[in-house]
Amino acid sequence: MSSIFTKIIEGEIAAYKIAEDENHLAFLDAMPLVKGHTLVIPKNETDFIFDLENEDFKNLWSFAQTVAKKLEKAYPSQRIAVAVVGLEVPHAHIHLIPIEKMDDMNFKNSRLKLSDSEYREIQNDIINS
Amino acid sequence: MSSIFTKIIEGEIAAYKIAEDENHLAFLDAMPLVKGHTLVIPKNETDFIFDLENEDFKNLWSFAQTVAKKLEKAYPSQRIAVAVVGLEVPHAHIHLIPIEKMDDMNFKNSRLKLSDSEYREIQNDIINS
Repeated sequence: MSSIFTKIIEGEIAAYKIAEDENHLAFLDAMPLVKGHTLVIPKNETDFIFDLENEDFKNLWSFAQTVAKKLEKAYPSQRIAVAVVGLEVPHAHIHLIPIEKMDDMNFKNSRLKLSDSEYREIQNDIINS
Repeated sequence: MSSIFTKIIEGEIAAYKIAEDENHLAFLDAMPLVKGHTLVIPKNETDFIFDLENEDFKNLWSFAQTVAKKLEKAYPSQRIAVAVVGLEVPHAHIHLIPIEKMDDMNFKNSRLKLSDSEYREIQNDIINS
């Protein structure tokens, strides 16, 4: 069965997309810790990020770097933090999280509840940054 | 002033080194969340990881991939989690953390207190994996 992320890539599930190229996609996390919390994925459905071929792995991070720079402009913060955990969805994904303090990237924190218009505003902020 | 990590690179401060090449170093975190918690750094002292030149950024992650694969062999776990936070030491560093569950990479958790011989055992486990 396709992962939920493959369904997003294929357009079966909607997502607020930030950036896309032939092999990668970035979109807003549906359960954001903070505004601008973004996921970066390879389109090739691979469970464990370190199992990607070296070239694919490097290109995924390169794509993430571009997205992080846009995020940084849209949401000036202390850091764009990075996390790869991957215990929930078996499709490698990089979290990019604009943080002010360490605890902003605590995955135990409650998640923001945003309306469709709030998501669209964040999406536009990042795309147009 | 040199960062604490530059002092480790230059041998002024001791560390349990895991892997090294001309531009990168991996060593055991001195305040580990779990056994095998490793830091990967570029030797070029750069504060914010996304400010690295694209080639240097990709090469750093490529080096981290090699280290993660060794870690995975030495400490079989659900995932080798990745975190980049960087609020404490102004020298970009990637945390590689063998985790069984999400909370294993909670930076609020208390840290392991390991003896020199325990660190050396972990170091050897990873180097020889």
